[in-house]
Amino acid sequence: MNCIFCRIIRGEIPSTKVYEDDLTFAFEDIEPQAKVHTLVVPKEHIENLNDMKDQSLWFAMLKAAQEVAKRKGIEKSGYRAVINCGPDGTQIVPHLHLHVLGGELLDSQMG
Amino acid sequence: MNCIFCRIIRGEIPSTKVYEDDLTFAFEDIEPQAKVHTLVVPKEHIENLNDMKDQSLWFAMLKAAQEVAKRKGIEKSGYRAVINCGPDGTQIVPHLHLHVLGGELLDSQMG
Repeated sequence: MNCIFCRIIRGEIPSTKVYEDDLTFAFEDIEPQAKVHTLVVPKEHIENLNDMKDQSLWFAMLKAAQEVAKRKGIEKSGYRAVINCGPDGTQIVPHLHLHVLGGELLDSQMG
Repeated sequence: MNCIFCRIIRGEIPSTKVYEDDLTFAFEDIEPQAKVHTLVVPKEHIENLNDMKDQSLWFAMLKAAQEVAKRKGIEKSGYRAVINCGPDGTQIVPHLHLHVLGGELLDSQMG
């Protein structure tokens, strides 16, 4: 598997880890779009949001995102959770990932 | 409950429904930020993403979002799923909601 996120999860490509559990891995985005910009990915290679069918894994992603918000100190100040899917969604890496953005007032425009 | 989304779910405020099941309700955003802009909400009043603790309900929101993408014809062309939480996340209505945006190439800037 040459997927860049699979390689990050395996430690073959360095990353700044924010959180990890059995099912998920969270690390800093290398091209942040806000003061806080962390990615939460399932360890299992799932291409995009259409392909997510696993209830436990989906819940693990939520818990990981909530934990990332706590660890980054933005739980109360607020944040945005974003999943881009496919071409119009501007998904770049074909391994499902949830962006956690915050640390400052975000733009109200989401699209 | 004077929550505007609770009132929409109960049919007290009109909306253009896209999808409904026992746990979720999806309807068109009245101030769309993209050609497709649909909101998925849990029928249970949950204020924000920090307060979402229910695995079944969280999975129901995913399935509803996937179904919305199908019904709006953007499953393959792509879309963006967004949940704003709290002030910095620009959450306006304090009833958890997931935005499904698509129907055109979205801006790559998410924050």
